[in-house]
Amino acid sequence: MKICHTLISGFNTMMILLTSNTIAFDRSIRRSLSMLHSGVSVMVNGMPGLMAQEVAKVCLDRGINLIDVGFTGPIDQQNLLINGKSSSKSIFLNQGPGINPNASLILRNLKEQYPDLIVVDYTHPTAILNNLKCYIENNVDFVMGTTGGDQSKMLEIFNKGSCSAVIAPNMAKQIVAVQSALAVISSKYPNSFSDYTLTVTESHQSSKADTSGTAKSIVADISKLIGKEYSFENIVKLRDYDNQIAFGVPQESLSGHAFHTYRLTSSDDSVTFELKHNVCGRRIYAEGTIDAVLFLDQVRKQTNNKRLYNMIDVLESGQMS
Amino acid sequence: MKICHTLISGFNTMMILLTSNTIAFDRSIRRSLSMLHSGVSVMVNGMPGLMAQEVAKVCLDRGINLIDVGFTGPIDQQNLLINGKSSSKSIFLNQGPGINPNASLILRNLKEQYPDLIVVDYTHPTAILNNLKCYIENNVDFVMGTTGGDQSKMLEIFNKGSCSAVIAPNMAKQIVAVQSALAVISSKYPNSFSDYTLTVTESHQSSKADTSGTAKSIVADISKLIGKEYSFENIVKLRDYDNQIAFGVPQESLSGHAFHTYRLTSSDDSVTFELKHNVCGRRIYAEGTIDAVLFLDQVRKQTNNKRLYNMIDVLESGQMS
Repeated sequence: MKICHTLISGFNTMMILLTSNTIAFDRSIRRSLSMLHSGVSVMVNGMPGLMAQEVAKVCLDRGINLIDVGFTGPIDQQNLLINGKSSSKSIFLNQGPGINPNASLILRNLKEQYPDLIVVDYTHPTAILNNLKCYIENNVDFVMGTTGGDQSKMLEIFNKGSCSAVIAPNMAKQIVAVQSALAVISSKYPNSFSDYTLTVTESHQSSKADTSGTAKSIVADISKLIGKEYSFENIVKLRDYDNQIAFGVPQESLSGHAFHTYRLTSSDDSVTFELKHNVCGRRIYAEGTIDAVLFLDQVRKQTNNKRLYNMIDVLESGQMS
Repeated sequence: MKICHTLISGFNTMMILLTSNTIAFDRSIRRSLSMLHSGVSVMVNGMPGLMAQEVAKVCLDRGINLIDVGFTGPIDQQNLLINGKSSSKSIFLNQGPGINPNASLILRNLKEQYPDLIVVDYTHPTAILNNLKCYIENNVDFVMGTTGGDQSKMLEIFNKGSCSAVIAPNMAKQIVAVQSALAVISSKYPNSFSDYTLTVTESHQSSKADTSGTAKSIVADISKLIGKEYSFENIVKLRDYDNQIAFGVPQESLSGHAFHTYRLTSSDDSVTFELKHNVCGRRIYAEGTIDAVLFLDQVRKQTNNKRLYNMIDVLESGQMS
């Protein structure tokens, strides 16, 4: 398999050599193998995780150069075929920072080959800090979609470097836009729905034990509109088949969806406001991630001092799919 | 009937005398009959119109002094009993400006009796300009909910006076808040839903021939979000029994409701956003009107140069029910 792989891809050969702890590394040979790519190139870390795979697919579908190597977790190095709508690409998955001593060297080499490299990170909470250090020390700009990291430690590491990044817990930019709208009116018009009662129902795949973070965030804003606290415990969580089907979740999306309904009803029942955002699968998050990549590629070329961005910045930039 | 009425209310007697074109009018007797009322008092014009009646009911229910006389159209003067939730009041309806030469005198007298008078106008498009002149020449602050007037002429008349007013086509402040939120994100994040398809359905009582103005206004903003024109002709108008019942309109509200659903669907059908605002009856508009009255009463006591307000001002003031 290794020999076969070598024949297919000189670049991947290099990766295999590196991960085999090959110390001697002939920089001149490597340079002769590599080509300098112009325009943004994306390395997706976290495959074979499904979110990372979806991002890789969006790269293919939107004609963005997807680098054929990615960092993965403590699993055997392997090739993974990503099938886009009209093209496919084989990605060589290599253990990442923290578990692979050569990870930083791999990234440095990629940065040399692809000067406009941007990394997308959908890995694991336990990998975030090591990955971040690796990106920073190689001055590689990145989009971080992995959640669960220690925010203050992340910021501390980030501030030591000089690269730019989008770090956001929710890459679905349309949902972020809706959250932003609610934040605006709850701040401008508190108590404007003081006569109203809120009910919130969310449905996610049965493996999700906790309450939706997006629902909690939106409820916090609606609480200001109704002028009273709404306990997160009152959010109705649907995790069982019958209720999910009744709630409108398609059969084929039971294993991966995020459906939310917020309803405000006036005290005399004469008026109802309802907001729904129903997501099947992961595509919306992957599209938003690539929007963030393109935003970052655009904004880093401009001369401003800001380096850390979120999805509101992406939305405001008008860099849309 | 007139004698009986006189015994009940000295004030109404005066009104009857005035509308009977009684020329001799003893100012000293009138003054002795009247009492100076402190705090905001509301004269509701446009009864027996249902919108004006609903505003009168909200006055009673919210403990606001409802003046027992109101201007009406070209109908016989009459008493109308307004039943609030826990109290009732008889209102003497008198022909208004343009059809009653004594209308201005009646208003001047009311203003003397009730220095903090605010007029609410839910009359008729043809009455707006005459009413406006009458309010302006007697320096009576007002809330104008009547639609269909000539905006530039209204402004011209208004600017000749020195009173304050709220003029708004939609007094449902919660709907105005939602419109405001959409205006914010469509302006800040244009094209953020460029991949999405919009469908709009609205249902109103069968007597309403035209398309909902609120729907048109909201569609104009959503068009910016999807980055393409959405023709108002594509708005689905439900005006028939079967479709309205299927759309969720309660049987008892078929004769008076305003239901709206806006749905945005991603091109791969994986994501749906939905916004509904469903109103049965007129209460929400009447409540918002009284919010506007209280706002006006508050803001006119402050020293600022602004005199003409809309529902966004009311919302921003935090003067909420």
